[in-house]
Amino acid sequence: MVEEKSIQEFKSGDEIQGFFIIKKIEMKLSTNNKNFLDLTVSDKTGEINGKVWGCQEGQDKDFPTGSLIKVRGNITEWKGKLQLKINLMRLVNEDDGKNIEDYIQGAPIKPEEMFDEIYEYVQKIKNKDIKNIVEKIILESKEKLMYYPAAKSLHHAIRSGLMYHILRMLRTGEKLSEVYANVNKDLLFAGILLHDIEKLEELNSDELGIAEYSKEGQLLGHISMGMNKISQVGQELGANEEIIMILKHMVLSHHYEPEFGSPKKPMIPEGELLHYIDMIDARMYDMEDHLKNIEPGEFTAPIWSLENRRLYKTSF
Amino acid sequence: MVEEKSIQEFKSGDEIQGFFIIKKIEMKLSTNNKNFLDLTVSDKTGEINGKVWGCQEGQDKDFPTGSLIKVRGNITEWKGKLQLKINLMRLVNEDDGKNIEDYIQGAPIKPEEMFDEIYEYVQKIKNKDIKNIVEKIILESKEKLMYYPAAKSLHHAIRSGLMYHILRMLRTGEKLSEVYANVNKDLLFAGILLHDIEKLEELNSDELGIAEYSKEGQLLGHISMGMNKISQVGQELGANEEIIMILKHMVLSHHYEPEFGSPKKPMIPEGELLHYIDMIDARMYDMEDHLKNIEPGEFTAPIWSLENRRLYKTSF
Amino acid sequence: MVEEKSIQEFKSGDEIQGFFIIKKIEMKLSTNNKNFLDLTVSDKTGEINGKVWGCQEGQDKDFPTGSLIKVRGNITEWKGKLQLKINLMRLVNEDDGKNIEDYIQGAPIKPEEMFDEIYEYVQKIKNKDIKNIVEKIILESKEKLMYYPAAKSLHHAIRSGLMYHILRMLRTGEKLSEVYANVNKDLLFAGILLHDIEKLEELNSDELGIAEYSKEGQLLGHISMGMNKISQVGQELGANEEIIMILKHMVLSHHYEPEFGSPKKPMIPEGELLHYIDMIDARMYDMEDHLKNIEPGEFTAPIWSLENRRLYKTSF
Amino acid sequence: MVEEKSIQEFKSGDEIQGFFIIKKIEMKLSTNNKNFLDLTVSDKTGEINGKVWGCQEGQDKDFPTGSLIKVRGNITEWKGKLQLKINLMRLVNEDDGKNIEDYIQGAPIKPEEMFDEIYEYVQKIKNKDIKNIVEKIILESKEKLMYYPAAKSLHHAIRSGLMYHILRMLRTGEKLSEVYANVNKDLLFAGILLHDIEKLEELNSDELGIAEYSKEGQLLGHISMGMNKISQVGQELGANEEIIMILKHMVLSHHYEPEFGSPKKPMIPEGELLHYIDMIDARMYDMEDHLKNIEPGEFTAPIWSLENRRLYKTSF
Amino acid sequence: MVEEKSIQEFKSGDEIQGFFIIKKIEMKLSTNNKNFLDLTVSDKTGEINGKVWGCQEGQDKDFPTGSLIKVRGNITEWKGKLQLKINLMRLVNEDDGKNIEDYIQGAPIKPEEMFDEIYEYVQKIKNKDIKNIVEKIILESKEKLMYYPAAKSLHHAIRSGLMYHILRMLRTGEKLSEVYANVNKDLLFAGILLHDIEKLEELNSDELGIAEYSKEGQLLGHISMGMNKISQVGQELGANEEIIMILKHMVLSHHYEPEFGSPKKPMIPEGELLHYIDMIDARMYDMEDHLKNIEPGEFTAPIWSLENRRLYKTSF
Amino acid sequence: MVEEKSIQEFKSGDEIQGFFIIKKIEMKLSTNNKNFLDLTVSDKTGEINGKVWGCQEGQDKDFPTGSLIKVRGNITEWKGKLQLKINLMRLVNEDDGKNIEDYIQGAPIKPEEMFDEIYEYVQKIKNKDIKNIVEKIILESKEKLMYYPAAKSLHHAIRSGLMYHILRMLRTGEKLSEVYANVNKDLLFAGILLHDIEKLEELNSDELGIAEYSKEGQLLGHISMGMNKISQVGQELGANEEIIMILKHMVLSHHYEPEFGSPKKPMIPEGELLHYIDMIDARMYDMEDHLKNIEPGEFTAPIWSLENRRLYKTSF
Repeated sequence: MVEEKSIQEFKSGDEIQGFFIIKKIEMKLSTNNKNFLDLTVSDKTGEINGKVWGCQEGQDKDFPTGSLIKVRGNITEWKGKLQLKINLMRLVNEDDGKNIEDYIQGAPIKPEEMFDEIYEYVQKIKNKDIKNIVEKIILESKEKLMYYPAAKSLHHAIRSGLMYHILRMLRTGEKLSEVYANVNKDLLFAGILLHDIEKLEELNSDELGIAEYSKEGQLLGHISMGMNKISQVGQELGANEEIIMILKHMVLSHHYEPEFGSPKKPMIPEGELLHYIDMIDARMYDMEDHLKNIEPGEFTAPIWSLENRRLYKTSF
Repeated sequence: MVEEKSIQEFKSGDEIQGFFIIKKIEMKLSTNNKNFLDLTVSDKTGEINGKVWGCQEGQDKDFPTGSLIKVRGNITEWKGKLQLKINLMRLVNEDDGKNIEDYIQGAPIKPEEMFDEIYEYVQKIKNKDIKNIVEKIILESKEKLMYYPAAKSLHHAIRSGLMYHILRMLRTGEKLSEVYANVNKDLLFAGILLHDIEKLEELNSDELGIAEYSKEGQLLGHISMGMNKISQVGQELGANEEIIMILKHMVLSHHYEPEFGSPKKPMIPEGELLHYIDMIDARMYDMEDHLKNIEPGEFTAPIWSLENRRLYKTSF
Repeated sequence: MVEEKSIQEFKSGDEIQGFFIIKKIEMKLSTNNKNFLDLTVSDKTGEINGKVWGCQEGQDKDFPTGSLIKVRGNITEWKGKLQLKINLMRLVNEDDGKNIEDYIQGAPIKPEEMFDEIYEYVQKIKNKDIKNIVEKIILESKEKLMYYPAAKSLHHAIRSGLMYHILRMLRTGEKLSEVYANVNKDLLFAGILLHDIEKLEELNSDELGIAEYSKEGQLLGHISMGMNKISQVGQELGANEEIIMILKHMVLSHHYEPEFGSPKKPMIPEGELLHYIDMIDARMYDMEDHLKNIEPGEFTAPIWSLENRRLYKTSF
Repeated sequence: MVEEKSIQEFKSGDEIQGFFIIKKIEMKLSTNNKNFLDLTVSDKTGEINGKVWGCQEGQDKDFPTGSLIKVRGNITEWKGKLQLKINLMRLVNEDDGKNIEDYIQGAPIKPEEMFDEIYEYVQKIKNKDIKNIVEKIILESKEKLMYYPAAKSLHHAIRSGLMYHILRMLRTGEKLSEVYANVNKDLLFAGILLHDIEKLEELNSDELGIAEYSKEGQLLGHISMGMNKISQVGQELGANEEIIMILKHMVLSHHYEPEFGSPKKPMIPEGELLHYIDMIDARMYDMEDHLKNIEPGEFTAPIWSLENRRLYKTSF
Repeated sequence: MVEEKSIQEFKSGDEIQGFFIIKKIEMKLSTNNKNFLDLTVSDKTGEINGKVWGCQEGQDKDFPTGSLIKVRGNITEWKGKLQLKINLMRLVNEDDGKNIEDYIQGAPIKPEEMFDEIYEYVQKIKNKDIKNIVEKIILESKEKLMYYPAAKSLHHAIRSGLMYHILRMLRTGEKLSEVYANVNKDLLFAGILLHDIEKLEELNSDELGIAEYSKEGQLLGHISMGMNKISQVGQELGANEEIIMILKHMVLSHHYEPEFGSPKKPMIPEGELLHYIDMIDARMYDMEDHLKNIEPGEFTAPIWSLENRRLYKTSF
Repeated sequence: MVEEKSIQEFKSGDEIQGFFIIKKIEMKLSTNNKNFLDLTVSDKTGEINGKVWGCQEGQDKDFPTGSLIKVRGNITEWKGKLQLKINLMRLVNEDDGKNIEDYIQGAPIKPEEMFDEIYEYVQKIKNKDIKNIVEKIILESKEKLMYYPAAKSLHHAIRSGLMYHILRMLRTGEKLSEVYANVNKDLLFAGILLHDIEKLEELNSDELGIAEYSKEGQLLGHISMGMNKISQVGQELGANEEIIMILKHMVLSHHYEPEFGSPKKPMIPEGELLHYIDMIDARMYDMEDHLKNIEPGEFTAPIWSLENRRLYKTSF
């Protein structure tokens, strides 16, 4: 029997029907020289690879990336991963009464709420120069922040993922500064708010949060670009030179290791904390994301972004 | 004029007098073939290298490690480091009315208070098996925990340093679990409480918190030893097999990288957090420790334990 | 003409018939959306990948792993490797008069003989404590030792491969201790006998010697598990503390490099020798295994387990 | 007999007299508790370490860094290196009729000549935007360029060393672009002219070319600072966006390896060439510098900046 | 409409016809168990992968490597790479009036011209011993030099590629020795002429410049083989011992890093230059080769031989 | 009381007298500007650093390296190492009746005996070509083999150390080939006999076994030189090409890792064994050498040649 299921509920052998968003679509040639469509489709609960066998040249043009489709198909398994063999597929029409918003994989908090909370943290910064720089940059970035992911394919690669990442880091930063009370909270909050801000230019994202690298992103990277942004805004606002320098140092050093893009390591405690808070949030996101799909007592498949570790879900 | 100063206040050119503890003492031969004493002395505020020039063979025997001495001398500078040239030195006697307790470099919180707070965290563990294992080990370790340092010469190498390290990690762990609410607090607390527990056997420490590696420490290391401890206690208590295994996995993986002693990386989120909490506490300790001696706007000398970084103290 | 051949004799173009064991079997979907069976089959002389094209959903259930089958098919070549295209295939029945024992790839010496020789080495250990620990562990492990491989897919991944590995290492150890006469033979033999013993728990193997990692194997690894075993047995027997510690050190350090699982390098000559004897036996096994299939004057394909080296077979 | 010699001519055993510049001076305490002066002195031909034994506290204040002194002393050898034991030393006075200019170790071409030649290269740039950016930066930097070294202690750590480095690279770049004719000369020249330009801010140098790192230099480094400079000037001049981006990319990538400060590798041929031209000039400088002091058929001591290689001077 | 196009002009969707050389041909089995031919074909402008679907067993034998064929087919795209689906294919016959020479991908200068220019450089060597060794080796190698590529699949893997590589390096070397005038030109030219000379024995190449590794090449490598060659010829000619040694040192060290085959780094400036000249020529070749296929303002795909960098083509 | 002791028996505080050989002697200047002699002296049991304080310029010339001296002095301790403070010292004269032979640290077997045993192994080689090459080289090397050490300062840096190293490796090789019976003994013996043979030219040793690197040794290394030797001799004797190539491959690959000098890893089992046999002998030598000086239950100081491991001496 055909069941209406969300992606997270799929099991090998299911015959399913549902609504999904197209994240990627490509016409390919099988080794027996027949055309087929290779897609990635998603809903709120996850994403899955799908195939449409034996289709016409050009059929991919009818289904642009980002459209909401209705699908009927079978779930099969290939090398330990589920796959969706699509038997029927069409674009959603008005009669379906479906809203694409309900199918987008995004941060679990509403963008407006997240922005408000982030903006409160900006207000907590006491040093005028630091606050002014951060506030100007955050306000100018607001429009993109509302939907930008934090990555093309790594952690927080979901709609509004970048803001969600910043928000959880701010919460963590605030709590850590209660334990490590010597830390300069102004600097720590500013570092968190600005560290990834030029991902907004390093990536080109559509409103669904699907992103590609920009030209400048590839040639310069968000760290260099972020430092430049701080220089510009800092000079416009006539901020203190040392403050500009230190904010740039925090952005420069937040990846920590040269091979991950930071030619300098943090030379201030707030920079050190920024790095670890960043790592913790990225790793907790990835781990949660992979563990949600397995049963207690099981291991995940090796996870590339975690150096091919397999994660284990405890059963107690 | 001779001033009574604590070590942290020393400046090159001072003529000082004060009371200090001997941490290391060795008779050496200068290149012009004269005996001299080479010492490390400390008080609550820090430690310094000292020399007694032109002394008698055997004079080092009169001043055993750990004794409190009265010293008069001059502060000089050698390769950018202060040095104490000792002109007069004798053991403290009753008339001095000094208490060695007041000169020991130790954690800033009293051991009993720290233990009580740590023990409260033990009580917060809800899973019976986890709690039983942790409680038994912590209670059995209490005596040593009261004064053990966390290292021979790295971070927290002070009296009661290990407990101070554990305590701040517990506080951090509790706060992080408010942001990352899926985390199993029982596991996280247990991991923090047990991760370094066999430093109590890896090191041999005197009551001043001055430590050397034990034989077993060198041949096996505190990670292997800690896993063994958990096995033993877990079996005695008839604890659930998976719980024993997971606690051992947390200890095994907490150094994260093979070259730092962990052959496996964490495969559960609580192990991942444990590692980062450990790093944060060690780094914040080291950074505070080095920054306290410099002025705003200055850099420290390169710090070995921080990959030879020089730290900067902001002036705003 | 259809020939009855063993796997080692296969050549591209052959039409063959024979009896084989199924080591792995999986139903897959070809890129033209047809089901096919993908198998690994083996006999005493080697293993080969096979395909059954155009088969029914569920057909894989009729042929469980470990069963002996009769096959007719063609040998083809794919990317420099032979492949078996299966035309006919059925389970062996009584009339075939075949014994699965004759088709299992296993150590070239009978398990009972190997065990006896290994046990003789145990008897050669003079130190009572060492002997008692080793003897207890070896006797308790006997049942599994009889058929366990030494690995899932690396060297000695054959039935009784672990025991064969231990045995050849003992022979080598004995000979080396004639050249390096200062070496403590008791320790060396004990180290060899125990170094991999917890592969019996790190892996779950069936009686054909086909293995998967266990949960504990993945989370802790055979080195940690082996150390724990020695602790337990040593304490039960009330053995000398230093002996327990040294035996654990040998297990801990036998992989030599942190990135291969040993956080400590050997600190005793017997541990150093153990490592090299282990390496030699693994490498000689792998090299023999790959060279047997090529002609003098030829190179093998790159071999993954030998860092992608190609081996050469001399022609003189 | 006392001979008037330049530093390059010193031999162990010489009794010498001459005029030298003080590059570094420090009062130290010998292990037998006597004060001595530890100096580095230089003339046009090289530098040497010197000692003044048994001197008064404060005597170092009479001889500030950068002063020209008259010295009489003996040349001795210590661990394979020559050393100057100073017997007499005084500041130069008018009667000596000496000009400090004649004793400074500097580039072998006059600064004005070098600047003129460099400026000619600027004029050879045909693209208006590139030329404008480069010209503005070079002209604004002229004053410092006249005397800045290229490093604190590595290659070209001499007066006007940075300009000499740039000049020889331009000559090389021009010649290479004759062989590799597809290369965009405008870009190549611009990259050479700008790649190290912020060494003028990364270092603080006096007019003798003796330098220390600046605060910003340590926290940000000349690569980040150079990119920022190009952004600023480019925007002021309203230059084409892609040109600004590419010039920044060349600065960003010219150290080539992350661990040497470049988070991106060159993605254009001109960036690739820039890197190799930079390496060649640095290495040829270092090699010449070390080989000039040895005889044909001999090896130098291990050279730190050349990964501890010893160089050989051929005798044919 | 079917167009006559060269490979560089192909675009996805084209229906083309043309003449090409077979560089590689293999019969394969598709996953739906049908035979197909998998080829690499080339002309002067590049190479492309091609497929002939549904062909007969043995058909590959009719089209040996190195033959010139006439093809009709369609250009498709597969994973971002163009592919040629061959519909018709036959060997060229006399009536076609085609000359294989016009389809071989080779150096852009005629072999005879290149050899003459190289030989002129030999004549510029003034030192008799160096000249004699180089001349003898170059003359003996002439026949192979005329067509040998410099590699199996890396830079300069085209007909006469090795000579083209040597020639451009000689031109560069000559120019660099104008800037770095202390360099011994005899040595530099000799090093360039001999550094890769045993690629003539490390590889076995056919006259089209298509090569495989020889047995000796795999077991010893062209560096060891080249040193041996110099020893032999040097001794035959009774050359000066130091000269032989230095020439061998240049060959030994020209790959610079142990992991690329040089156990020693250059200890003479000429060896240092040789390395960088070699790198520059290899890199410029690779970059030109990849950039020629993209439009200004675009990036290439990641390039394996350039550590997976993507190159950018500037649009100004 | 003054005691006659050998170096191994020295204890801190001893007043000793004895005969020793000078291995190194240098006149130095103390930091208080007095001359002193810095020596290394040895006898059969070990070596020790010594000082003669307050001596005359030129006094070192009276005591050339390699002379036997009579010494009276005191044993002191400096940084955990014993040192000999020499009070009286003179060259041995006829009346002393001492033979330098009795004081040289050398292999524990007589050179002639070792050579005879080595030569027997040569005779065991059955393949004529292999035997001829090996025999010629060994016979030609005999004179130097009698006294050459295997290193300047690493393992087997004693008189006749190279031959001792070869001999124990041959014994080990013979035994291993009993366990791994497929191994070609001719190749294995030849590889062992030739692998380090050009240390005879890489080093310049005096008859006491004290060595320095030769010019060729530094520029080319014994691996390259050894390959060349085999080529030469092989060609002279008209040996089979493959045999020459394989013997060279064994020499080339015996250090195994590029960073230790082998650009290729062994591609034949005999080469693999050669490497491990070499490692075992070097390590067993070093370990024995360091363990002989400590008591059971103790650790050595960190040993540089063993990656700074500390060794432990078991007490059972």
